[in-house]
Amino acid sequence: MTKVSIIMGSKSDFPIMEQAVEILKKFHIEVEVDIISAHRTPEKMFDFAKNAHEKGVSVIIAGAGGAAHLPGMVASITPLPVIGVPIKSSNSIDGWDSILSILQMPNGVPVATVALNAAQNAGILAAQIIGSSNVEIQKVLIDFKNELKEKVLNDAKHL
Amino acid sequence: MTKVSIIMGSKSDFPIMEQAVEILKKFHIEVEVDIISAHRTPEKMFDFAKNAHEKGVSVIIAGAGGAAHLPGMVASITPLPVIGVPIKSSNSIDGWDSILSILQMPNGVPVATVALNAAQNAGILAAQIIGSSNVEIQKVLIDFKNELKEKVLNDAKHL
Amino acid sequence: MTKVSIIMGSKSDFPIMEQAVEILKKFHIEVEVDIISAHRTPEKMFDFAKNAHEKGVSVIIAGAGGAAHLPGMVASITPLPVIGVPIKSSNSIDGWDSILSILQMPNGVPVATVALNAAQNAGILAAQIIGSSNVEIQKVLIDFKNELKEKVLNDAKHL
Amino acid sequence: MTKVSIIMGSKSDFPIMEQAVEILKKFHIEVEVDIISAHRTPEKMFDFAKNAHEKGVSVIIAGAGGAAHLPGMVASITPLPVIGVPIKSSNSIDGWDSILSILQMPNGVPVATVALNAAQNAGILAAQIIGSSNVEIQKVLIDFKNELKEKVLNDAKHL
Amino acid sequence: MTKVSIIMGSKSDFPIMEQAVEILKKFHIEVEVDIISAHRTPEKMFDFAKNAHEKGVSVIIAGAGGAAHLPGMVASITPLPVIGVPIKSSNSIDGWDSILSILQMPNGVPVATVALNAAQNAGILAAQIIGSSNVEIQKVLIDFKNELKEKVLNDAKHL
Amino acid sequence: MTKVSIIMGSKSDFPIMEQAVEILKKFHIEVEVDIISAHRTPEKMFDFAKNAHEKGVSVIIAGAGGAAHLPGMVASITPLPVIGVPIKSSNSIDGWDSILSILQMPNGVPVATVALNAAQNAGILAAQIIGSSNVEIQKVLIDFKNELKEKVLNDAKHL
Amino acid sequence: MTKVSIIMGSKSDFPIMEQAVEILKKFHIEVEVDIISAHRTPEKMFDFAKNAHEKGVSVIIAGAGGAAHLPGMVASITPLPVIGVPIKSSNSIDGWDSILSILQMPNGVPVATVALNAAQNAGILAAQIIGSSNVEIQKVLIDFKNELKEKVLNDAKHL
Amino acid sequence: MTKVSIIMGSKSDFPIMEQAVEILKKFHIEVEVDIISAHRTPEKMFDFAKNAHEKGVSVIIAGAGGAAHLPGMVASITPLPVIGVPIKSSNSIDGWDSILSILQMPNGVPVATVALNAAQNAGILAAQIIGSSNVEIQKVLIDFKNELKEKVLNDAKHL
Repeated sequence: MTKVSIIMGSKSDFPIMEQAVEILKKFHIEVEVDIISAHRTPEKMFDFAKNAHEKGVSVIIAGAGGAAHLPGMVASITPLPVIGVPIKSSNSIDGWDSILSILQMPNGVPVATVALNAAQNAGILAAQIIGSSNVEIQKVLIDFKNELKEKVLNDAKHL
Repeated sequence: MTKVSIIMGSKSDFPIMEQAVEILKKFHIEVEVDIISAHRTPEKMFDFAKNAHEKGVSVIIAGAGGAAHLPGMVASITPLPVIGVPIKSSNSIDGWDSILSILQMPNGVPVATVALNAAQNAGILAAQIIGSSNVEIQKVLIDFKNELKEKVLNDAKHL
Repeated sequence: MTKVSIIMGSKSDFPIMEQAVEILKKFHIEVEVDIISAHRTPEKMFDFAKNAHEKGVSVIIAGAGGAAHLPGMVASITPLPVIGVPIKSSNSIDGWDSILSILQMPNGVPVATVALNAAQNAGILAAQIIGSSNVEIQKVLIDFKNELKEKVLNDAKHL
Repeated sequence: MTKVSIIMGSKSDFPIMEQAVEILKKFHIEVEVDIISAHRTPEKMFDFAKNAHEKGVSVIIAGAGGAAHLPGMVASITPLPVIGVPIKSSNSIDGWDSILSILQMPNGVPVATVALNAAQNAGILAAQIIGSSNVEIQKVLIDFKNELKEKVLNDAKHL
Repeated sequence: MTKVSIIMGSKSDFPIMEQAVEILKKFHIEVEVDIISAHRTPEKMFDFAKNAHEKGVSVIIAGAGGAAHLPGMVASITPLPVIGVPIKSSNSIDGWDSILSILQMPNGVPVATVALNAAQNAGILAAQIIGSSNVEIQKVLIDFKNELKEKVLNDAKHL
Repeated sequence: MTKVSIIMGSKSDFPIMEQAVEILKKFHIEVEVDIISAHRTPEKMFDFAKNAHEKGVSVIIAGAGGAAHLPGMVASITPLPVIGVPIKSSNSIDGWDSILSILQMPNGVPVATVALNAAQNAGILAAQIIGSSNVEIQKVLIDFKNELKEKVLNDAKHL
Repeated sequence: MTKVSIIMGSKSDFPIMEQAVEILKKFHIEVEVDIISAHRTPEKMFDFAKNAHEKGVSVIIAGAGGAAHLPGMVASITPLPVIGVPIKSSNSIDGWDSILSILQMPNGVPVATVALNAAQNAGILAAQIIGSSNVEIQKVLIDFKNELKEKVLNDAKHL
Repeated sequence: MTKVSIIMGSKSDFPIMEQAVEILKKFHIEVEVDIISAHRTPEKMFDFAKNAHEKGVSVIIAGAGGAAHLPGMVASITPLPVIGVPIKSSNSIDGWDSILSILQMPNGVPVATVALNAAQNAGILAAQIIGSSNVEIQKVLIDFKNELKEKVLNDAKHL
């Protein structure tokens, strides 16, 4: 079966990245989680990125803050789609640094960037990617959209 | 066979969005192209987004400038992965408006955002998404990475 | 009689949007309030925007945060004036995302944007719009300006 | 009959502000045009703002660049709705100065701000305001929306 | 004797503007303080600005936040030097709105802008302006510079 | 008689700073002009700043671009009022670097900052400073305000 | 033996700058620490910068906030490499002012700028500079890199 | 003898990076130049960074634009000081992306960042680093400072 790999640059990113784990579990999609720092464990990052597509991973989610190089560097090595989550870490400049370091990749090497701290959306996007060739997962996503709708309609009723 | 749908808010976006068409054709992936404006043809947008996943489309690429609502609105309706291309249109504020309107989607409705004007990268990302469940396309992407590498190595030789 | 419709993308926007309700009530202008999410209840949004002008609504006030598409999407469908309130929500990038997503609308589809979180001003602007063809409301607004003035003059006296 | 007053801080703003004049003429709405500088003709501005609502004006459109005080100062005096057009003038800092000086008005004194240089949208918004109490103008606006739609649908056909 | 007039848009600006009062009192320069809102008391502002130079005022310090029009509007009317203090008020966008609304004045009407919230520096600048034609005040300022120096040298000693 | 000293960091700043020279000559105020670089001629800067107030100078205007340290460093040494002109030089980041380096001075050492490239306004501000203790110059400034007004009124007539 | 000189503009910068002291001590590199304000003690700054390279200093680390002139001014005088630490002080505009005042130095006078508040990185960079001609220090740095790696690998194990 | 290694992400960066080559040649410091892309030739980058310090290189200068990962990734691997040159490439967002991706490195892995496009300053900084343990090079730099000074003094004479 297919798998989503969720990596992050530091254990301090876990409280945010956990939201990707949770939503994927809710969708019954298998996840693996690891801490891999582009700047502190570059060899581990290289090994991971070189081999992920041969180990049953179909989507990689990478979260990082500041000069966030992890998503882009992984994308430079793997043929898999890489989803980048910019994280507003402590000395970040309001998150602009993480966003621009992840988003503004050069021609040839895209990173699918989501909103600041939006690890849940990264999880949903990973599910959509899997769902694009898997009708069952696609149905789960349609149900999820209905859930979101019901919640808003219900909030409106109780305003 | 699977298909990528490339839409844009205005015909003035075509010179940028054409780069997505070209790279996907290079990868022998089928594309369809249309102009759909969230603000000027909202019904057409709604119909498109409602039905795309049932018409053989597996990924949607949507480009728009300024207060760019097309990618996010399509993503609110379709269960497919939506790639957003922020376009630096004429009265844009250096592209910041397009980037933030596409990137900063709320929880539940992700858009896979690429760099400003990076329609080629949107095409590559679409191929990676298809490749995540299609070994042949994945091989094409590995070859493409090698091509990029060779070009840089060659440039280095002729410095 | 005429009516102002106040909508917002999420119930978490209510503490801000309530200020529009209050000022309009103070001016004895009828209001209706609803939660309508462009991204989670797109059909409800379409229905609302399609029909508002035929249900006695003369101005729409729409508040939203992040990639705020609600005001612009409603404006794309209704012939009524739409006032947009950018809201600084939790993961917003200092409010820039909401402001630019609401303000930078393309030619043909304006949104009357007010300051960040300025729901009270949205209410006053709605009253001014109604007052532009209603002398009584216009007088209420002139009185309100005098009230503001008296308050400042009084503050000055007690400095 | 009702009238829209279009004012601007300098004659160099006219090539932009002219677009408001043109769209309103297209809608058969009467306009008057003047140059009024908040900083160079403060008394004229004061007189204008004090009296506009008693001279048949129902909406004011004010365009200005840089530290753009004209829309906000007029709004501080008149009970009419004031639409502000931020103009990207020569020494402007990418338009940010005009946008923020017009948009970020304090509680009590709103300015209905449109996009950078978007004088056409200011004209459309003025028509929507008039249309909110005038069924005929509202019909003109519905026709205009259809025109916009037809143009995009046609562009799509000829892609 | 000469006098510095310190005005502000709202009583909530007083805790900041008070620092200008204090430093000028320390320098034995006469001050008068008032609350004058460009947007809520435009007539009072006009009267003040029209007459200040004939009432013994030689420098005006004006503090305001958000779309801060007070310093620039006063400068448009008075021939006196006007010092503007951008204030980071509650709904300000990190102070950028106040800074740009005060700083980016058009040709012909300067405002001497100081740093965000820097009312003390506004007071010192007012003293420097008076000192530029008053040797005694200039000496006070030279002493003040020495005080600042001694404080830093002393801090260094106790590091 | 009193004198305004106009200095700039590089000869490439002269086309901008010349506007300060011209307006002061128009007002019949004596000027001296020099190139003094904080970073390339620090000793010359030090000597200049140490002695200016004893050589008949009453106001200093300093223009610089990029990491613009000239106005602030001169202000740290002289007791005179220093007017800073941020210049948008070639590798400047849209002028933000010059503005912030000049504006955001610490407590104790103000720089009277004017708009980006606004050397003419720096000249007018210098005249206002001199005029604050010189009725004749103040009259010249009142006449200048009238000139500005007449020009705008005339432009309005010929619209 | 060689020495790193760590200076800062104010004693309030010490809690940040202390991190540079600590990391250098950990590397057994000699440090000296002083408070030197470009704006309040310009003569002390000149003397320091003029003589540091003749007193056994091989690298200077200078931290400052706001309109941060200390690193650039020291760099304008000394032939030594100067590392600048932008500090996010209380009235800073999110740190942008410190960053741009330190980073955007003109041609001829570089400052080696590190991230906002990154005094530890300034210390490491100083060690790298010394290590570039000192094999022993270079080995210490390779060990330090291994320490960082081990810490991340260990965090990953305990996720 | 020691050597400076100058690398860049793309041959389009050469016209900027050439200025580092030229100034180092002027100082008679040996340089080697190569094109190494973090995203297109990650293995080459890895090899280069792993070995540079054992091949006689004492400083690395790395230039890159957009999401500029080259300087930071090289710094994550080498114990040598790495100087980063942010380059304002074609689709860059005014250079902010390059600056923040290079500057905002996490604790443990500094990059010595210079101004936007400031390759000449990167060369001078490399010379200062070498000069910090080499009196001859330090003398060359003192002469260079004098040259800069003479040029400005001369410009002042011919104003």
